[in-house]
Formats: sequence, C-alpha cells, structure tokens
Amino acid sequence: MAARNGTRYEQVADIIERQILSGSLKPNERVPSLRTMSRNVGVSVGTVVQAYLHLERRGLLDSRPRSGFFVAARSPAAASPSAARRSRKPRTVSSKVVDTVLSALNRTDLVALNSAVTDPASRLNGRLNGLTRRVLRELPELPNVFIPPPGLETLRREIAKRMALTGAPVVPDDIVVTNGTMEALALSLGVLCKPGDAVLVESPTYFGILQLLEHLRLKVVEVPNHPEHGIDADALEYAVSGSEIAAALLQSSFNNPTGAQTPDAVKERIVRLLAERGIPLIEDDIYGDLHLGPERPKPFAAFDDSGSVITCASISKSVALGFRVGWVAAPRHTTELIRAKFCTTVATPTLQQHVVARYLAEGLHDRHLRRVREELATNFERFSDAIVDAFPRGTRLSRPGGGVVLWLELPGEVDGLSLFRAALAHRIGIAPGLIFSASGRYERFIRISAGVRFTPAVRRAIEVLGRLARG
Amino acid sequence: MAARNGTRYEQVADIIERQILSGSLKPNERVPSLRTMSRNVGVSVGTVVQAYLHLERRGLLDSRPRSGFFVAARSPAAASPSAARRSRKPRTVSSKVVDTVLSALNRTDLVALNSAVTDPASRLNGRLNGLTRRVLRELPELPNVFIPPPGLETLRREIAKRMALTGAPVVPDDIVVTNGTMEALALSLGVLCKPGDAVLVESPTYFGILQLLEHLRLKVVEVPNHPEHGIDADALEYAVSGSEIAAALLQSSFNNPTGAQTPDAVKERIVRLLAERGIPLIEDDIYGDLHLGPERPKPFAAFDDSGSVITCASISKSVALGFRVGWVAAPRHTTELIRAKFCTTVATPTLQQHVVARYLAEGLHDRHLRRVREELATNFERFSDAIVDAFPRGTRLSRPGGGVVLWLELPGEVDGLSLFRAALAHRIGIAPGLIFSASGRYERFIRISAGVRFTPAVRRAIEVLGRLARG
Repeated sequence: MAARNGTRYEQVADIIERQILSGSLKPNERVPSLRTMSRNVGVSVGTVVQAYLHLERRGLLDSRPRSGFFVAARSPAAASPSAARRSRKPRTVSSKVVDTVLSALNRTDLVALNSAVTDPASRLNGRLNGLTRRVLRELPELPNVFIPPPGLETLRREIAKRMALTGAPVVPDDIVVTNGTMEALALSLGVLCKPGDAVLVESPTYFGILQLLEHLRLKVVEVPNHPEHGIDADALEYAVSGSEIAAALLQSSFNNPTGAQTPDAVKERIVRLLAERGIPLIEDDIYGDLHLGPERPKPFAAFDDSGSVITCASISKSVALGFRVGWVAAPRHTTELIRAKFCTTVATPTLQQHVVARYLAEGLHDRHLRRVREELATNFERFSDAIVDAFPRGTRLSRPGGGVVLWLELPGEVDGLSLFRAALAHRIGIAPGLIFSASGRYERFIRISAGVRFTPAVRRAIEVLGRLARG
Repeated sequence: MAARNGTRYEQVADIIERQILSGSLKPNERVPSLRTMSRNVGVSVGTVVQAYLHLERRGLLDSRPRSGFFVAARSPAAASPSAARRSRKPRTVSSKVVDTVLSALNRTDLVALNSAVTDPASRLNGRLNGLTRRVLRELPELPNVFIPPPGLETLRREIAKRMALTGAPVVPDDIVVTNGTMEALALSLGVLCKPGDAVLVESPTYFGILQLLEHLRLKVVEVPNHPEHGIDADALEYAVSGSEIAAALLQSSFNNPTGAQTPDAVKERIVRLLAERGIPLIEDDIYGDLHLGPERPKPFAAFDDSGSVITCASISKSVALGFRVGWVAAPRHTTELIRAKFCTTVATPTLQQHVVARYLAEGLHDRHLRRVREELATNFERFSDAIVDAFPRGTRLSRPGGGVVLWLELPGEVDGLSLFRAALAHRIGIAPGLIFSASGRYERFIRISAGVRFTPAVRRAIEVLGRLARG
C-alpha cells in the first residue's frame, strides 16, 4: 500500500517491514546491506539509510556498529500485531458490518467480549445507588430541574481537579458536561470542522470515531498507531505536511483496539507538530485512568501551552457505564460548545450530574481506580494465557499497558469478519478488526474485550473462538 | 420583504396586509376595488383577484357578494401578533444574542419567564422519585448497565401505545429512544440532510431549531405560521415548488413561540404536498399533550400513509424536564438513526429509561396530564390578564390553544431585544422575538413563558416588563 502512495524511503521501509511481518526476515537476522538494497530497489544509498533509521525508530531494526542493520532481537512485529501502513485516501467502513456489530450489542444471550468496558463492580454500584438515594432525598425537585450547559458547577470543579492531577490543569469554566465522551467528540468536531474537511486519526482507531466522522461527513486521514510504540509521529508529520487537515482526533492512551501507549516525548512532538500548523487536536482520554503501570499517562493537553488541545473524557469506563456523563475541556471553544450542546441534546441529565459530582468529591475514586486496575491486570493475564492456549500457532496478540481490550492478528485463512460471524452463531460477541479503520486493513484482526471477569464461560468462549480461528 | 422576493400577487397581498397590520385599513373597511388596485400597482385585475382570494383564505379579508372585499370583521391581525411574510433567503440568528439568551438560562436569580417548560409539580416529582427508588432496589446493577440504541424495549412499547392514541400508530421497533426531542431532531436531520441542504421551517419557530440547523450547516427556508391559523399551506406550497428542499421540520401543535395550532385539514394538505414531492417531514410533537381544548391535536404522522413523516417528542414538557428522555419514530429510517445515535451519544441513561417506562406503564399519566392542562389554562388566563393590564395600549398578545408560552408584539419604540436586556437588569428572564426567525423579523416581539406558577413575584415581574415596554 505504502509502495503506491509513500515517499521513496517509505517504499523501502515497507519492503523490509513486510518481510519481517511475513517471517521471511527473522529476529536477529541481518537485513540486506545498504548497497545491495540501493541497487535492488533502484534508490540512493541515502534513501535506504533513511528507511532503515525509520525502522529502527519504530523498534523493528537494530543497528550494530560496523555490522549493519538487523531485525530487532525481540521485534514487536514478531510477537505482536502489525501496524497499519500509512494511507491518505479517505474511505469508509461498511455500514452493513457496523449494523451487525451494533445489533450484537443488543443481544443479551452472548458471552459479551464485544464491549470495551470494565466489569460492573457490585460494590461500586452499591455506593452509586446510595449516593443517588441521598441526592433524591436532599433534592426531591430534581426530576423537573434542568441544568443548561456548561453543566453543574460542582461537577465541573471536580473534573477540573482531576484533570490537574493528570498534568493538564483547566478551570471549571473551560469544561462543558456532555452525555459521555462520544458527545464531547461530536460537539468538538462540529465546532472545529465543516463537512468535507479531513480529520487525522490513528489506524486502527475506535470504530465509533470512524462512524462519527462519517456521520458528520468528514474525511479520514489515517496515520499508523503501532501496537507497541503508539502513534507514528513521522507518519503524522508526513500526513500534515501533505494534506489539508482541519483537526486531529487522537486517543490519548491505550489505543482502542491495540492498547498501545504513545510515549510522552512523542506526544510532545505531536502537539508541537500540530500547533505549528494551527491544527487543533481533539483527544479522547477515556482510558487514561486504566493504566497497568505505576504512572497515569499524561494526556496530550499536558504538553500544550497554546490552548489548542481539546480534551474529551468520561466516567463511563471506570465508574458508571449507564450514567452517560462525560465532558470536554476546551479553553478556546467553550462558548461554541455550549451553543452546540444546547441545540443538540440541550442538557445532560440532572440526577447523574449531581451523583457523579458527589462521588468524585467523596475522594474514594482513587481507591476504586486502584482496585479496577488490579482486576484489569489479572484479567489481561488470564485472557492472554487462554488465548495463547486456544488460538492457532502464529496468532499475534497485543500486550497492552492499559485500557480494556486485546487485539489479535489471525494467522490462517479465517478472517476477522468470518470469525465474528461464526462466533455470533456460537453466542460469543467479539469485534471484527476491519471496522477499526476506513482503509480496509485489519481484515485478519479481531478485538476481544478483557474488561469482563474471567469466568468459566469466558474460558470456554475463548476455546471455541480458538477452534473457529483454525477454520 | 415579500415585495422584493415574491410573485406579483404576493406583492399586492403584501401591500394590503401591511395596511391592515399598520391599522390604515380597519376591520370591516372596504379595500380598494380590483380595478383601482390594478391601476395603482400596475398589475392585471386577475393578479389582484388572486391576491385578495389569498388574503381571504388567510382570514384577513372577507368577500361580500356584489360589494367587493372587506377587511375581516375580526381580523386576526387586529387582535393578535402578525404573521411573518414569506421569505426564501436563508439567513442566521445572531450568535451573540443567542449566547446571552443561553447564559440567562443559567442564572438562578431571575424570575424565569424565559424557559418554555411547565412548573415542577411536586406531587409528580414525589412519584418519580419513588419509582426511581424502586428501580434502584430491584435492579441495583443499573449504574453499570448500558442500553444500546434503539433503547429499552419496555419504554419503546409504552411510547408506541401513546403514539397510537394520538392517531399515529407505530410499532416499538420503529422507535429510537433519545436524549430529549432536540437529539431526536438532530439525528433525523443528520440522517436525511447533507450540509448545505435547505430545510423548510415555520416562521417563527423555536430558536433551538434554528440553532440546530445552523450547527448542522443546513439552510433555512421559512414559511409563515400565523398566530391564529397556524402554518400557511399556500406559502408552503409556494416554497416547495420554488426551492430544492431536503426536508421540512415543523412543530406539530402549539407553535413555540406563537402557540398557534394548524387545523387538521391543513396538516393533511401539508403532508400530501410534501409527500408528492418526496420531501420527508420531521415533526416536533413536544406540545401536543398540552392542549387546552378537549381534544389532543393529531400529529402530522396521523395523516401520513407513506411512512415519510418522522415524529420526534419527549416527556420533558409534561413529566420530567431533568430526565432528558425523548424519542424518534421513523419507520423508514430506524437503522440509520440507531447508527447515528450510537456514534454521537451512544445511549440514553439507563435509569431514566427504566423509570419513564414504569411511569408510563402505571397508567396514571393521563390523569397527570389533565391536571397539568387545567393548571396551564389558569396560568394562561392570569398571565394574559396581567399582561393586558401592564403593557402599553397597542400590545398584541397571542391566545394559544395549548403549549406553554405567550407571544407579544410590542407597539412602541421599545424593541424586543432592548426589553429582554432591560428585563435581565431587573432580574426577569424573557426571550427576545428576533431569535425565533433567521429572517430578522420579530424585532418587536417577546416570548413570555406561562408555564410557571402565577406567583406575586411573577405579577410584579409582568408589571415591571409593562413599564419597561413603555420605554
């Protein structure tokens, strides 16, 4: 793909990457010398150097002094799913497939590995129900009180406090409460882009984001997010220099579906690259709190000193999926966002705003998050072990540093969509890989949520999936 | 305005209408003869006949056998606010004014006559809180349950039952639950129109609708809704024959702000006119239940046998403003609406869907509505009396058959926007007329909500408004 669209050094890099992915080049194997490659492909030695250094930055090659370039000892590609190649051509995901995926979400008879959420924690539900009862008692008039945008002030204060802890301080007046993160993204795009504009996203990215861009009639420009290194800043630089981009919409941490984390230095570079070109960055920080490592990763906004990063997030992934409470922090666009919110959904339900404000003010959220993260770490281990046992040899599995999903590249003849359909017939819900890109890549991928408890039913479901994946 | 844009007969009609509105032609006065008018304006006698018959259909003129045409004995224009003239030129409402109106909604120090809602009924709030407690007890896992679109089935069944009672039966599978009516309208427009398309609306219409069209980058084509006769079907026919219209978005009953009701026969004609041209009709039936007369007015969908009418409504105006539960019934577009809902706000909060489903299933809703309507009738009477007493002579006041708002045309030098601003300084919230049309008409109008209880503070506020309206 890149060979048709990319620059010369990318064409060279692509050739090598394919050989690594296909297994023709093994870990620790020497890659063709600069001169051989230059002669074979018909490019200058300088171009080959550029290509090899690019692959080295991406962790695919190692350079050894006076010996040349070698496939990395533990090449990410050798153990984890491959990254997308860059593409500038806007396409769309099949609506029919998406409709099937959505209707599967409505089925209550499935082992549900298709929803990127954490398990309902009964202890937390008890606390939230207790807070709800308390709010009903103290404010019995709430059913007929509505809170116009920007939303409940005490809630916005709590959100501002939490954002400050992530390294991206904002004032409560910069925050607009929304019906979850997706509304925050939708309103931000509505304010920043006009139909026909191009929006830069990762590949792969959450399929709801691609659906939203299509719904708003925006074009998609994809840059690779590598399962182990996160967003490819080189590819991003290439994309923004070559195309007219109205906005970037990137996941802050633990890409859905790959679980990849973009290092701080790369985030800083991306923020700078976009700011230099006046391209606003909308970030989706929905998984930041679900880190397995000791540190919460910083959102892009933490590297922004120009106020051009818009941060969208919610409590849906860690506290209350059913509440639909999210927010957008956008210092430079609050007035337009208030107007947009008012004329689309008017307000976020009153009761949930009060309950979440109290929940966050109680100060027990961090303790809850610690427990959720511990459970997630256990889940990831058990799911991964079961998948390795059940799936055919050659299956590649992501090793996420956080978030709630696993990303699998299938080795054989069975593609992700066929496996998704076969799984449904066995009452198992997964997500087919091809909905996570507008480019048609990821046909051989599936996404499995590791957010639900690892029950015997889940183990059996994974065994069935593994069998189906053998074709 | 019409003189510049309209056809010749409209230009003639406009000349007469202006004279009636300005008082130059009084009720029962003979209008210029066909021949005189033909000579003075320089059009054929046939054109004048067409103009006079048009004004007769609109209730402004009476024809008397062998005597000619007379201003109607009780011309609507003589007692009630004037209608808009037709206009095809798309414009927009000032964002600055809208921002001020929205920020006034956030002020808690106002006598709030600026929000088109009914009064919080404490008895109803008690029942809703009781139902909420019961749902929490029976389904303690709800905080972490989410209900993907189309939404809770038991709720959709109850909505379908109520729609059948209005004369527009649908099946539960044709309904998508939304975050209030505005989201229902936003999703419908998103599915039916592409940016740049023209959407036909009434003039005046709810300002949130105009803001929504602007947000979605849709153009506005306005047709008059007369305070006493409702939507002008002639003007609508003229508009759809002369312009490319992607969809019509009309209020089913009790236009906000005028309170006007469109007769069944006219609704039927409008549905037919639009269906003939393949123009889908999105109706906003938010006020239908708040009728003062004995019969609930029918929605447009009741006259539709082609499935091309999309009905949007909610419980926000009569049950629970703070719940944000609405719906859209669209037999031909359910799949696209589900997709659009999923990628914008994902789902409507779980708890409120359960509570509203139970509330409606309980069968006490009709009794509640009867009480709300009785209160509204009393409110309208008291508000109207107080306004007539307080406002300067020449003020024109609507006489709505339902809904929750009053529409005033000011006689003097004080325009609606100045009065709105002066009122805010006196801690009184009203809505300035000019936000209810993209055309710049209604500068001399204000909207006063009669949904809140008529307290001494409200009486004093109306007295202050009357004083301010004197300039």
